[in-house]
Amino acid sequence: MADTTDPRLTPLAASLPATVPFVGPETMERQRGTPFAARLGANESAFGPSPRAIAALRDATPEMWQYADPEAHDLRHAMAAHHGIAPAHIMLGEGIDALLGNLVRLLIAPGDAVVTSAGAYPTFNYHVTGFGGTLHMVPYAGDHEDPAALIARAAEVGAKLIYLANPDNPMGSHHPATTIQTMIDAVPDGCLLILDEAYVDLAPDGTAPALDPTSTSVIRMRTFSKAHGLAGLRIGYAIGPAPLIAAFERVRNHFGVNRAAQVAALAALADPDWLPHVRAQVVDSRAALSRIAADNGLTALPSATNFVTIDCGQDGAFARRVLTALLDHGIFARMPGVPPHDRCIRITCGPADAMAAFAAALPRALAAAQD
Amino acid sequence: MADTTDPRLTPLAASLPATVPFVGPETMERQRGTPFAARLGANESAFGPSPRAIAALRDATPEMWQYADPEAHDLRHAMAAHHGIAPAHIMLGEGIDALLGNLVRLLIAPGDAVVTSAGAYPTFNYHVTGFGGTLHMVPYAGDHEDPAALIARAAEVGAKLIYLANPDNPMGSHHPATTIQTMIDAVPDGCLLILDEAYVDLAPDGTAPALDPTSTSVIRMRTFSKAHGLAGLRIGYAIGPAPLIAAFERVRNHFGVNRAAQVAALAALADPDWLPHVRAQVVDSRAALSRIAADNGLTALPSATNFVTIDCGQDGAFARRVLTALLDHGIFARMPGVPPHDRCIRITCGPADAMAAFAAALPRALAAAQD
Repeated sequence: MADTTDPRLTPLAASLPATVPFVGPETMERQRGTPFAARLGANESAFGPSPRAIAALRDATPEMWQYADPEAHDLRHAMAAHHGIAPAHIMLGEGIDALLGNLVRLLIAPGDAVVTSAGAYPTFNYHVTGFGGTLHMVPYAGDHEDPAALIARAAEVGAKLIYLANPDNPMGSHHPATTIQTMIDAVPDGCLLILDEAYVDLAPDGTAPALDPTSTSVIRMRTFSKAHGLAGLRIGYAIGPAPLIAAFERVRNHFGVNRAAQVAALAALADPDWLPHVRAQVVDSRAALSRIAADNGLTALPSATNFVTIDCGQDGAFARRVLTALLDHGIFARMPGVPPHDRCIRITCGPADAMAAFAAALPRALAAAQD
Repeated sequence: MADTTDPRLTPLAASLPATVPFVGPETMERQRGTPFAARLGANESAFGPSPRAIAALRDATPEMWQYADPEAHDLRHAMAAHHGIAPAHIMLGEGIDALLGNLVRLLIAPGDAVVTSAGAYPTFNYHVTGFGGTLHMVPYAGDHEDPAALIARAAEVGAKLIYLANPDNPMGSHHPATTIQTMIDAVPDGCLLILDEAYVDLAPDGTAPALDPTSTSVIRMRTFSKAHGLAGLRIGYAIGPAPLIAAFERVRNHFGVNRAAQVAALAALADPDWLPHVRAQVVDSRAALSRIAADNGLTALPSATNFVTIDCGQDGAFARRVLTALLDHGIFARMPGVPPHDRCIRITCGPADAMAAFAAALPRALAAAQD
């Protein structure tokens, strides 16, 4: 691919990094010449979607010639009933990623201040940079994001947006609802908290504050990609105050949430049994990952998500060698990018065969990393 | 929905229209309280996708827990082979709509000039306005877009983008490849022609100029939504010079082209028989629509697309009454928005039962419109 830059780009676009920021596991597989034995790097749900969602999608395949409803009326109303809120508080998008992009576009002009945690979700940072915002990074407090420090920095720099994921990715930690509610109540005037709850369906009871979609201080992000097992279809949603939700209509790709996603998500939402099933599987898998870590002299951090972050006990260079060796041994995994969290590797929960593949590969990866 | 505006929007976002710009047929069905008998308003392909695409999608449903390949490697390489060009010249997106949005974002800063035809694709205008560009409208020449006038206006206003659809929507007209090549050769320095070829698979041979993806004057837009019958899955693509194609990596939603779309499009591309089948069906349907128009004393315009634009023989107010009456009689259709083209209604091709429903409704709609 040519590495020259098109001279017609806007000054902002020309200033953005030219490298591809997100490399998928398929690219790694092509580079290594063979598929991974276990796909444990993207926090997908290998427990799959609800059988009802699969059946609904199969039944709907002949209808894919029709554009989807741009209002996603049936799904949005079902979600509103599910959450006990009005549909005007819900906006769907092509995954949380697309919603974050549109939200940043709506609120961030070049030079506007945005506060997030150093090492938190890189796609959010990508969007902020992409619209010319200025990122202010707050360190984690240990292995937790630091709500009070995020609020303090936002007040100090006059931020328009604060990003916090609860539970957190990549550390798997979480704050209880009371802590998050205190944070919401402290959001400065003129600022908005993005509360990314992609993993909240997998967290302990008491992690999510009660929904109050009339609050103008916070917008909540949820997804069908994690516990619901529909990552490949791209559907997430935002819950927030009606005027902010309505503002998405000014910039979004109105026909972007595809018909397969709407059909499958509606069926998934109507299945009361699947999330409890997935939660039980995830609890088992977290325990398996903790045991595997302990068997190899490593420490698994507590997790409120469908992944376990494992402290490799040394520095970032060592953990990076462990990760590389895992990849060489057929395990797709990832790791935190920023010290001191880069002492860890991050392993997605999965069924027994995937756990067994990881258990077999880890000792060999550790041996290779010691060399 | 609250109609107040969130005070935190950027000045640009606050300046954008607050109304929902695109109303889907499902919304109209909810308003009328009953489904349409025939869905002939969105230029979807009621002939459906290739049976191979349907089968591939059904087989892939259990895999929807996996994010799709953000590079869409297999599909992009298959498309490159299909078109006889290198993969570096192809960018996939969530429909042409998403590609237009990203392209405008890359090239248009507030105040930059953009040239299009008055009455052409409104979603393109939506994106230009959304990024603060200034739209310059050129009238059609009769029922055709006017390539020479578009080029002249672009030179006059120093446009960074020109938009032309060939074949055209909403008029169904087309220019031969030689005319379009002359236009490409005349694009001013510093300007880019967006050649929207969404309908080109349905046009006569000799409509598309030969692909020359090294040309920096043009980017071509194609889609699986029209002839391929996969509108609901949202997948389109751009063909252009490698540095411009690479620039999309700076702003796009990398995981946005969903797995269902990639699977179905790959299977559709591998079926050599489906497009000829669809083309034959569309030819039959165009003839049926022309007959129905003539039977009612109206004139069908020549069409190079999967829709027929019918001149209702009077002014815009009359055609609007015809359209409203058609909707009342269960026919979802649309019409051009700008005079003098708003003397017409626009009817999508479809199978015999849909044509029969339109044939039954049109005389009643015309009678109602005369009142």
